[in-house]
Amino acid sequence: MDPLPKVSSEKLDLFLRQAFLKVGLTGPQTDTVVDLLITTSLRGVDTHGIVLAERYIEGVVSGEINKRPRPRVLRSTRSAAVIDGDKAPGAFVATQATRLAISKARKTGIGAVSLVNLTHCGALSYYGMMVAKEKMAAMSYTNSSRFAAPWGGASRVFGTNPLCFAFPNGKENIVFDIATTTGAGQKVVAAVRDGKTIPAGWALDRDGKPTTDPARAMDGILLPFGGHKGYGLMFTSEFYSALLGGGVLSLAGEGRYFQGGFYIQATDIGAFRDYSGYLRDMKRLVRKIRSSKLAEGFEKVYLPGEPELNTRARRSREGIPVDAETWAYFETVSKRLGIPLPTPNR
Amino acid sequence: MDPLPKVSSEKLDLFLRQAFLKVGLTGPQTDTVVDLLITTSLRGVDTHGIVLAERYIEGVVSGEINKRPRPRVLRSTRSAAVIDGDKAPGAFVATQATRLAISKARKTGIGAVSLVNLTHCGALSYYGMMVAKEKMAAMSYTNSSRFAAPWGGASRVFGTNPLCFAFPNGKENIVFDIATTTGAGQKVVAAVRDGKTIPAGWALDRDGKPTTDPARAMDGILLPFGGHKGYGLMFTSEFYSALLGGGVLSLAGEGRYFQGGFYIQATDIGAFRDYSGYLRDMKRLVRKIRSSKLAEGFEKVYLPGEPELNTRARRSREGIPVDAETWAYFETVSKRLGIPLPTPNR
Repeated sequence: MDPLPKVSSEKLDLFLRQAFLKVGLTGPQTDTVVDLLITTSLRGVDTHGIVLAERYIEGVVSGEINKRPRPRVLRSTRSAAVIDGDKAPGAFVATQATRLAISKARKTGIGAVSLVNLTHCGALSYYGMMVAKEKMAAMSYTNSSRFAAPWGGASRVFGTNPLCFAFPNGKENIVFDIATTTGAGQKVVAAVRDGKTIPAGWALDRDGKPTTDPARAMDGILLPFGGHKGYGLMFTSEFYSALLGGGVLSLAGEGRYFQGGFYIQATDIGAFRDYSGYLRDMKRLVRKIRSSKLAEGFEKVYLPGEPELNTRARRSREGIPVDAETWAYFETVSKRLGIPLPTPNR
Repeated sequence: MDPLPKVSSEKLDLFLRQAFLKVGLTGPQTDTVVDLLITTSLRGVDTHGIVLAERYIEGVVSGEINKRPRPRVLRSTRSAAVIDGDKAPGAFVATQATRLAISKARKTGIGAVSLVNLTHCGALSYYGMMVAKEKMAAMSYTNSSRFAAPWGGASRVFGTNPLCFAFPNGKENIVFDIATTTGAGQKVVAAVRDGKTIPAGWALDRDGKPTTDPARAMDGILLPFGGHKGYGLMFTSEFYSALLGGGVLSLAGEGRYFQGGFYIQATDIGAFRDYSGYLRDMKRLVRKIRSSKLAEGFEKVYLPGEPELNTRARRSREGIPVDAETWAYFETVSKRLGIPLPTPNR
């Protein structure tokens, strides 16, 4: 099999920018949506990067994503707020929520914003990174349509309900973003597409029996990671993303653009201690992690989220690989909207 | 083997109260320390209940736990504070920190307190429950002496670094409290004592090889639960408990009373939405969880932390089982301090 064609992030950025503007997003909306997708692909999180362009462009065209939203602040206190996103493009309104959380944190030490009635907001790490750049720690959650069982159960109650934590660390912040299911939903989708099996322990079929067939899993139930411990975190994600702000619960979630709720919290390190002392301690911890002896079968000890940083550096040089299905969609978009296709490298 | 003698919580409470007062704790200190131990034993978390009485009483006697501490507020903003605990009894000063977090949350929506320079504070669920009673959600972390490796590593860098989330749910709040290692440190201690093995996947020996021998594990390294996902949460716990407030890192932790730092956050539901609407949605989610189909090999689907609630109801009626080692210690204390031993039931 030929390796996937690689396209520079600049060219992909330009292409997607033209496409989103053409289907009617505003400039600021386009900026955030495209930056989300390119940033996520650069980090190697291919399940949440440019592969989502089709979903988002078609969502705008069909009207399921509202291109002229009027978000409203439903409630606001010194450290908290709830915003109704009016079905705005997820990245656009989640970015606004993140800025608001940062500004509240600057004043009180901690700021948190719940966002309801939005559409799919992509990878949480994007918002976590925004916060970490401000010398603040981030905590973020979102929910998704029901696909996962509570621990011990075989009915869909929760989404894959991801969580994200981010921590300032000088030049390269530490950002870690995981589904609370053993495997991310988009990875199961990718396994079906690529004709691969999924690891044991990820899923049950619709009858509640373990399966490694991704098609049966799609039709069945995903499991929380780490048994009852991951289940507790899956519940926690549902709480912060939907119960707290009044968003739609995973169990009632429907549609390709569903995002019942989104939660972003910013914690200002400076409200707790001098940033320089913090950074000194963080560097010390990082050194100890890096100099750890290796366990059998491992070649390196990473910081949480570090593999994504390495991918980012490589793809910034070499370009972003585009899978066949996404490339075919780009060709369609190019014809339909009259936008030149980006040229792959070499 | 005879079943363990059971003693009513009231009798144990009276006995421990007399003991702590006799070794010199103040009334309010004694109240919190004893309430922590009894509450935790009632919940069936035997690794963190009355078994810790020896550690705490001897710590006060040796002076490692400071019975006349002068805690100081190091920094305070509207939503955040850092307190130096002056080696106070952990439960005493952690309870104060929790009250402060609640009072800040009442004013701004969110309140968080970092506590440094404290001594062992027991089970985090105790503080989470305090917060949930106020119709607020809790997030709490603490760290402990180095005992766990980063994912892929075989050196001790982190403690068992627990985390706790708690959520109001009417009469019976949802509280979930886990170590971010696969098994809690105190469970490994208990396995050594009881001559049992520990499950595969919990630990490496000092040479980095997997072991199920708890003595080798004590001498070796515990592993994060759920692979890289649990590792991220272990790091998160270290961040909130020590890096954020300036507490001692797990990697430098020493001594039986070590607690590098403690973090408690309270989030006021009412700052985000009407509490009645929240409770309605929570009840709906709880009903769906309870009515979930069962997976193979399971007899019931629990809410996070629910097994502990059931144990609490049973032990409130039947009494708390006291293991032989703890009973022997109680006999010593009874003689040494001239306090009558509590009578077991029947």
